[in-house]
Amino acid sequence: MTDNAELLTTPSIEDQISEAIATIDSLDQLDNVFLVACGGSYALMVSLEHILQSSAAVEAHALNAREFTTRAPRTLGDHSLVISCSHSGNTPETVEATAAGKAAGAATICLTNLPGSPLDEAADSHVYYQHGDDKLYAYTGPALAYRLAYAIVDRINRTDTRAEVAEAASHLDHIVKTVQDDHYDAADKWAFKHARSELIYTLGSGPNYGETYAFAVCLLQEMQWIHSQGINSAEYFHGPFEITDFDVPFIETIGLGSSRAIDERAHAFVTTKSDDVLTLDAADWDLSEVPEHLRASYAHLVFNPLLRLHADRLADHRGHPLTVRRYMWRMEY
Amino acid sequence: MTDNAELLTTPSIEDQISEAIATIDSLDQLDNVFLVACGGSYALMVSLEHILQSSAAVEAHALNAREFTTRAPRTLGDHSLVISCSHSGNTPETVEATAAGKAAGAATICLTNLPGSPLDEAADSHVYYQHGDDKLYAYTGPALAYRLAYAIVDRINRTDTRAEVAEAASHLDHIVKTVQDDHYDAADKWAFKHARSELIYTLGSGPNYGETYAFAVCLLQEMQWIHSQGINSAEYFHGPFEITDFDVPFIETIGLGSSRAIDERAHAFVTTKSDDVLTLDAADWDLSEVPEHLRASYAHLVFNPLLRLHADRLADHRGHPLTVRRYMWRMEY
Repeated sequence: MTDNAELLTTPSIEDQISEAIATIDSLDQLDNVFLVACGGSYALMVSLEHILQSSAAVEAHALNAREFTTRAPRTLGDHSLVISCSHSGNTPETVEATAAGKAAGAATICLTNLPGSPLDEAADSHVYYQHGDDKLYAYTGPALAYRLAYAIVDRINRTDTRAEVAEAASHLDHIVKTVQDDHYDAADKWAFKHARSELIYTLGSGPNYGETYAFAVCLLQEMQWIHSQGINSAEYFHGPFEITDFDVPFIETIGLGSSRAIDERAHAFVTTKSDDVLTLDAADWDLSEVPEHLRASYAHLVFNPLLRLHADRLADHRGHPLTVRRYMWRMEY
Repeated sequence: MTDNAELLTTPSIEDQISEAIATIDSLDQLDNVFLVACGGSYALMVSLEHILQSSAAVEAHALNAREFTTRAPRTLGDHSLVISCSHSGNTPETVEATAAGKAAGAATICLTNLPGSPLDEAADSHVYYQHGDDKLYAYTGPALAYRLAYAIVDRINRTDTRAEVAEAASHLDHIVKTVQDDHYDAADKWAFKHARSELIYTLGSGPNYGETYAFAVCLLQEMQWIHSQGINSAEYFHGPFEITDFDVPFIETIGLGSSRAIDERAHAFVTTKSDDVLTLDAADWDLSEVPEHLRASYAHLVFNPLLRLHADRLADHRGHPLTVRRYMWRMEY
């Protein structure tokens, strides 16, 4: 929060999210929502897609930004909303996707950490989020995106849940701290054990699949150079489960709500065939401050920093800081 | 083609596909198409989603069958079409998804190799496809699904491309044989080299991403117990590329049309940083019998058996037949 510190204060961000929600409310007609980003930001869109598809009669599509631009969906138009996200605000594919959405007549809202970035310039409306050591989890990208998603649900369903969603988000810092504290020792032990692991699979489904995908591609592959695949637990039994063996490591999330049965089925099998499974179960957390009907979709906001804790411990035991890259930011590609 | 051989003859299948297309044409209103399946069949749906999104103003969603059932999309209804696929016709998740679609008022069409299977019973309309040694590629699941996809495009766009699409599909056996013959020696050499490889990544994008995903989860993980991840080439630079090293093996597809630039960018990088990349490029094939506007979407029909050739050669050199499983079909899960 060094640059543009005044824009990243919580009152400023509350103003921005109010404006973004006003944009959503002002749309005459909203037929579909395209959720476009790359990598870790794309993973966030996968969670939003689940919320929108399961909660509102609006067509929602999470797409990698370049997949969006190249396939140029024929249903994109005046009655579309494009929500995009890039941490740096400089991801060219995401900037292009946002511009393509705008050119097609869609309303555009971006999430970014960098005010004044090309993404910020490309979008009609923006929400700047906090990041780094001083951040409040309630003002990070996932939490703000979560509030936008429910604003869309409200817009479609003519409901008014946004206040309770904002309230639930406000408890995030407390909940995350408690959950991280409760898991610290186990995370450290797991990380010590895996300091020389060359491959770790992740498993998750429904609103949490995106987090396990992000952990695989950004935390393990990108930041730790550990081979991985984010396996959707609903796909596990249709191929990937055959590589399960006593010494193949998995890190799995078990969520809440309708997807929980998917995760439990994968859990029952993977823990029988592998001796090396780390299970993170949302049912172990105290979510009493979150309304029950929001908990299943809220869980990914907690899995995100909980998985990050595991990556932090892993990085420490491996002597490979999460900031170290060999290609990214170091060359043209 | 041992069971129900008379239903799997080409005249019977032509009757079935005509009936399925008549079903599509008879729909008063078609707002969205849900493409639901698991594993390798789900991968096929990913290609169909690309065709539909890029070619027709209809909302299309490829979803793992259990993800579909648990999220219960709120836009599913009387104006929906559900297309499902299960090779055995016995995949419970796909049967349930088809039944859920029907219960919600959607029209349902299934693809399966097994007439009279639970999936067949669950769907309004069916297309039985050929499989195994005697099959014609023009009558396999992917080719028939391709014809259904363009029937939907015609229905939405009020065009009439289905005859030329059927004609293009009829050339598939000849094209596949030529491409497989051209690649046999290189495939065998690649397979010999990788007989003891423990991990092979796959790369692909757009209409071909599904094939590279299927190769990763079904051919490598399930049938050869080789670790893998099907990386969308558009996601490669947003995390996964950091695990690229001189000795990390990749098998990549390069397609045609608007997605080609995605594949070429990944190709340029991966071949610089890894000494172990097998490239399969659709531009190397003679597709003169396929109308130019269909070639980009047609390529996955050729990548499918071309990748299978590589798996066949790999299985031979590893002494691990593609039919051998340790869990699937051998226990309850």
